[in-house]
Amino acid sequence: MKEKLTIIKVGGKLLEDDEHIEKLAEYVARLDGSTLVVHGGGAKASEISQRLGFEPKMVDGRRITDAAALNVATMVYAGLYNKKIVGIFQKHNVRTLGMSGADLNSIRARRRTVKSIDYGYVGDIEAVNKRAVKMILKLGVTPVFCAITHDNEGQLLNTNADTISTQLATALAEDYDIRLLFCMDKAGVMLDPDDDQTLIHAMNYAEYKRLKMDEVITLGMIPKLDNAFYALINGVSEVWITGLTELTEAREMTGTRIFE
Amino acid sequence: MKEKLTIIKVGGKLLEDDEHIEKLAEYVARLDGSTLVVHGGGAKASEISQRLGFEPKMVDGRRITDAAALNVATMVYAGLYNKKIVGIFQKHNVRTLGMSGADLNSIRARRRTVKSIDYGYVGDIEAVNKRAVKMILKLGVTPVFCAITHDNEGQLLNTNADTISTQLATALAEDYDIRLLFCMDKAGVMLDPDDDQTLIHAMNYAEYKRLKMDEVITLGMIPKLDNAFYALINGVSEVWITGLTELTEAREMTGTRIFE
Repeated sequence: MKEKLTIIKVGGKLLEDDEHIEKLAEYVARLDGSTLVVHGGGAKASEISQRLGFEPKMVDGRRITDAAALNVATMVYAGLYNKKIVGIFQKHNVRTLGMSGADLNSIRARRRTVKSIDYGYVGDIEAVNKRAVKMILKLGVTPVFCAITHDNEGQLLNTNADTISTQLATALAEDYDIRLLFCMDKAGVMLDPDDDQTLIHAMNYAEYKRLKMDEVITLGMIPKLDNAFYALINGVSEVWITGLTELTEAREMTGTRIFE
Repeated sequence: MKEKLTIIKVGGKLLEDDEHIEKLAEYVARLDGSTLVVHGGGAKASEISQRLGFEPKMVDGRRITDAAALNVATMVYAGLYNKKIVGIFQKHNVRTLGMSGADLNSIRARRRTVKSIDYGYVGDIEAVNKRAVKMILKLGVTPVFCAITHDNEGQLLNTNADTISTQLATALAEDYDIRLLFCMDKAGVMLDPDDDQTLIHAMNYAEYKRLKMDEVITLGMIPKLDNAFYALINGVSEVWITGLTELTEAREMTGTRIFE
């Protein structure tokens, strides 16, 4: 039987309050098997960028990660938030190691260029270094990955945290029985994002397509759900989109469970 | 016979130019035995603090690390510089892991309060987790430590990088044959800091005391040399204060060698 591995992606908004990180740490300390955490931090990075006087660069309505934006992302994701999580997890006796994809060459990416648009220092994942990640997990350590990868040629790259979680999950699915949890500041996928009563408790791909067509599911939720279904199809045992309270405080987890 | 371990402390000023990091990476790639790197970044942190509009807090002429300054230090040391070093080292096939003292609880510190002065979030090292650091070294990995530690109660702390190098060196001296190299933007200790011809090639403690009394050695060099002598007295085999060119480009290392 494969060992259990819980992969938790924590949304950046949750990291703005240390109490949320405390709750997450208590939850991880209680978990059976291994745990791996991935986190974002985009909102904070935008705030720091603005305070440093950098204007967000846009081309054709798409945000471009220029050198200044990459530096800020590296500071906020790999520095501020990553070490805050590590410090609080350690307080709860979770043996934690903060990492970027550059550390141990754990996640190699390629700078994205799509047709005529240069997105700047944004990386699409090419390879997860399974050996390196398994080596850390086997030490009984909880790796905490920030949303920075690299090209193994000395260039750091900004990479979506949902995608990092998904790629880590699918790469490790051969060796571990994986539960992938996308944890955000909402209770899960809802018909009306402002009404918790409209939470969708379970969703399969047919329903997802229908809700997308009806424009009930829009914007940021689409890439997240695309990642969720991709993970399921590629060997991940269990996938949820859930909130912090739903994950850490309920006796039985609630949220939106994703099915093929 | 003990395994060789080279501990290199890199001054923050050297990190402002990527080419310096490339040179260091090439040097580390050539080294026999294990390597561990420690780095600062104070000048850059001050620059970012100012750009964010934080005024440096001073009490009785001493700089205080308030919450805002600690966040900036965490961003610059653990994020920007640490990941830049890791990325460039990986490019040179050095298997590298960036760490703070919070990661794996590797360096535990206590918040400094001296008499009536509260220095803010500044930590004095209480314990190096030898087992954790040795575990990483035994994997054939080069740890790169930034100047952030923690109290294991969830609080990150700003800690001097020279002191971190020294404490790591003395903690590991029982298990490794250690060469400790303080690498900075000068060629070593000089009688006249502006004249490379006045480099002191070797210095013992009696000479250090004399030069300190004569006020030839002043300011920032004093805590560095105090650390250097402390390391020697506490089991470190070889200690140098040197420059990047002197370390990486000379056929035989030059700089100031420290003797008891």
